[in-house]
Amino acid sequence: MLKAEIITSGTELLLGEITDSNTPYIADQLAALGIDLYYSSTVGDNYQRFYAVLEQAWKRSDLIITTGGLGPTQGDITRNVIAGLLGEELTLDTDLKKELTAFFSTRGIEMPENNLKQANIIPSAVPLRNTSGTAPGWWVEKDGRIIVTLPGPPGELQSMWQYQVLPRLKKMSGAVIVSRTIKTWGLSEARVDELVSPFLSEANPTLAMYAGAGGIRLRITAKADTEEAARTLITEREKDIRDILDKYIWGVDDETLEGIIGGLLVSGNLTLAVAESFTGGLLAHALSGAPENVKFFKGGRIIPCGASGTDAASAARLAKQARVEFKADIGIAIDGNVSAGDAGMGSDVYIAVDADNQRDTVKAQYPARLPYMTRRIITHALIFLKNFLNA
Amino acid sequence: MLKAEIITSGTELLLGEITDSNTPYIADQLAALGIDLYYSSTVGDNYQRFYAVLEQAWKRSDLIITTGGLGPTQGDITRNVIAGLLGEELTLDTDLKKELTAFFSTRGIEMPENNLKQANIIPSAVPLRNTSGTAPGWWVEKDGRIIVTLPGPPGELQSMWQYQVLPRLKKMSGAVIVSRTIKTWGLSEARVDELVSPFLSEANPTLAMYAGAGGIRLRITAKADTEEAARTLITEREKDIRDILDKYIWGVDDETLEGIIGGLLVSGNLTLAVAESFTGGLLAHALSGAPENVKFFKGGRIIPCGASGTDAASAARLAKQARVEFKADIGIAIDGNVSAGDAGMGSDVYIAVDADNQRDTVKAQYPARLPYMTRRIITHALIFLKNFLNA
Repeated sequence: MLKAEIITSGTELLLGEITDSNTPYIADQLAALGIDLYYSSTVGDNYQRFYAVLEQAWKRSDLIITTGGLGPTQGDITRNVIAGLLGEELTLDTDLKKELTAFFSTRGIEMPENNLKQANIIPSAVPLRNTSGTAPGWWVEKDGRIIVTLPGPPGELQSMWQYQVLPRLKKMSGAVIVSRTIKTWGLSEARVDELVSPFLSEANPTLAMYAGAGGIRLRITAKADTEEAARTLITEREKDIRDILDKYIWGVDDETLEGIIGGLLVSGNLTLAVAESFTGGLLAHALSGAPENVKFFKGGRIIPCGASGTDAASAARLAKQARVEFKADIGIAIDGNVSAGDAGMGSDVYIAVDADNQRDTVKAQYPARLPYMTRRIITHALIFLKNFLNA
Repeated sequence: MLKAEIITSGTELLLGEITDSNTPYIADQLAALGIDLYYSSTVGDNYQRFYAVLEQAWKRSDLIITTGGLGPTQGDITRNVIAGLLGEELTLDTDLKKELTAFFSTRGIEMPENNLKQANIIPSAVPLRNTSGTAPGWWVEKDGRIIVTLPGPPGELQSMWQYQVLPRLKKMSGAVIVSRTIKTWGLSEARVDELVSPFLSEANPTLAMYAGAGGIRLRITAKADTEEAARTLITEREKDIRDILDKYIWGVDDETLEGIIGGLLVSGNLTLAVAESFTGGLLAHALSGAPENVKFFKGGRIIPCGASGTDAASAARLAKQARVEFKADIGIAIDGNVSAGDAGMGSDVYIAVDADNQRDTVKAQYPARLPYMTRRIITHALIFLKNFLNA
C-alpha cells in the first residue's frame, strides 16, 4: 500500500493570501484510489526549507506530490529542489522548448526569456504535458519512490491530474475503493460517536465522522479486489448503521435537503412559498436554488426582524400568509428575533409549516452565535419541512 | 523574531472531505503581527504521526499553533499528543468541568460522558475559554516555546484567536504592528497590481493584495517602536494609494457594504425594501442583517427565477413594486435568469434602484459560475445602491 504525502509550496500560502484548494482536491482523489495520505505540508519559496521538507518526505513516504513553484519567476524553485535532492542535473529539453515556444507563438506573444527554465528537466523525470498553461509537470520514479510535480493553478493541476497522473496511479493500485456517506440530524457528535463506536476502529470498511451545520455525517469506505466485493462490505455496514441511527438519517452521498424536498414536492405535484424573519432570506435562497425549483417555488417574503411577534402563533400565521399570498400548496416560515440572540443566552426561533388541511410548528433553541446558528436553523427548518412532507 | 508553524489535525482533511480555512486565517493574522510563518502541515488523527510532526515543530519553531482534535470523540487526540511530547499528565480541571457541565445544562441537554475529556489539562497549559463551543483551547509555555491549541470549528477558533490569543501575542512582540485594509471594487487584480506595483516590494510599510467576491483588498502593514510612528507610516501610504485608486475605493478595515449602506439610510432617515430573483434571498439576507436594520429594513420579496421578464425594465419594475408594497423610501431589485447562466456563456443580470423621484438601472454580466457569481452580484448590487445613496 502506497503511503502518500503532499507538499504545497508558495510563500503566498504562508501569508494567508490565498486558500489552498489543491490539497483537498488531491486528498479526495487519493482517498478514492485507496492511497493513504499521511501528511500534507506547506512551505515557502525558500530553497533550504523546501529541501528539508522534501528530504523528510523522501524518507517517510512512497508517493510525494508537490504543487506549485513551476512558474517562470525567481521564486519558482520546485524543479531546482528536486534536482538538488536527487543529485541530478537540470538540462534544457528540446521537445519541451519547442512546445513552450509554440504556446507563445500561437498566442502571438513573444516568449519572455524567463519562461525557458520551464523546459528544464532531470533524467529521472518524464514530463507531464500542461494543456492549459506553460509549466509542464514531472513524473519522477527513483529508488522505489515516486515524485509527482504539479503546477499551482487549480485548473492546470486538475486537468494534468485527470489525464496524466490518475491513469498512471490507477495502473499501479490493485484494489478498488468505494465509499458512501450517511447524513444525520438531531444527535450530537459525541452521541453519534458513542452509538457507532465499535465500527470506528475497524479497518475495512472504515467509518469516519464529520460534524457540520447540516448535522453529523458518517463515511463508510471499503477496499476490495472487485467493485462488487467493496459494495457488499459497504451495504452490510450501512445496514448496521441504519439499525442504530434509524430515524436520524436523512440522506446519503451527494443528496441535499433542498434537493430531497424539491423531489418530494415535484412528485406530489405540490408548490411552496416561504416567509422568513431572523434568517432574512437564507431559507428562500436554499429552496429557490434547488433543482427543479421552477416547478415548485412560488415566492418568498422577508419580514423585518421582530416585526411579526416571534412566537409559535406568529410563525404559523406567517406560513399560512405565505401559502395564500403566493397561491402555493404549502407555506413554510421561520420567525425569530435577533435582539434576543444578542443577549448571548441563546435565541428562540419558531419554524412553522402550513398546508390547507394540516399544519405544524416547532420551537428551536440555539446558542446566540449568528452565522453558524443561522445555517443550523436553515437545516432544522428543511428537516422539519421534509418530515412534514413525508408524514 | 518568532518563527511560527501551524499544525492542522484531522483525518477528514487528508481525505479531502473539508477545506482547511483555519490555516489561511491564522497565516493572515500572523502576517499582520509580523510573525514569520515558515511551515504549516496537516496530519491525521493518528497518535504516532501527530507526535512526530509536533516533535519536529518543537525542534524548529518557537510558536506552534495547532488546530482541531479537541472534540469529545476517540479521534480527538491533540491534548494527548501534547501531553505525551511534553511528558506531562492530563488531569481533570474542576473549573473547566464546571463550565462544561453548565454549557450543557443551560441548553437542557445531558452531558455525554465523552465530553468530560475536554476538561482535561496539563500543568504547563492555561485554558483558553471557548465562548461558542465545548472545547477549551490551551496556551502552553515551556522551554522557551509556545504551543497554542485551538479548536477546529472556524467560528470557535476565530473568536478564541481574537479575544485570547491575539492580545497575548501582541504583548510578546516588541514592536508595534498596525495595519489597515483598503477595499476596492471595479478593477481587476492585474490592473490593481500594475497601479500599486512600486509599493508592493517595499519593506515597511508592506503592501499586500487580496482578491475576493467583495473586490480587491489592499493591506498596509507598518512596524514601528510606537503606535503613533506606525500610524504615520500607514497614513502616508494610504494617501499614496487613495491618489491612485481614488473612486474605486469603497471602504476600509472592518467596514462592510451593508454597514455603510445602513449608515447612509439611517442618517438620511430613509427606509429600504428588496425584490430579488436569481440571487433568491441573498441580497435581502445581507441588508436585513446589517447593523441598525430595524431602523431601515422594511421587507423583501423573492420572485421565482424567470417569472418577471429579466431585462432592465423588469428589474426597474420590481424595485418600484418593492418600494410601494413595503412602504419604503427606496426599493432595490436584482433580476436575472438562471437558465441563461446554465448555457455556460455568461449570464445577464439587472440591478435596479428606485426612489420616489429618482431611479437607476445597471446591467451586469457574469461568467456562469454560480456560487462565486452570486456573491459578486450581491457586491455589485450593494455598490450600486451605495453610489445611488451617495449621489
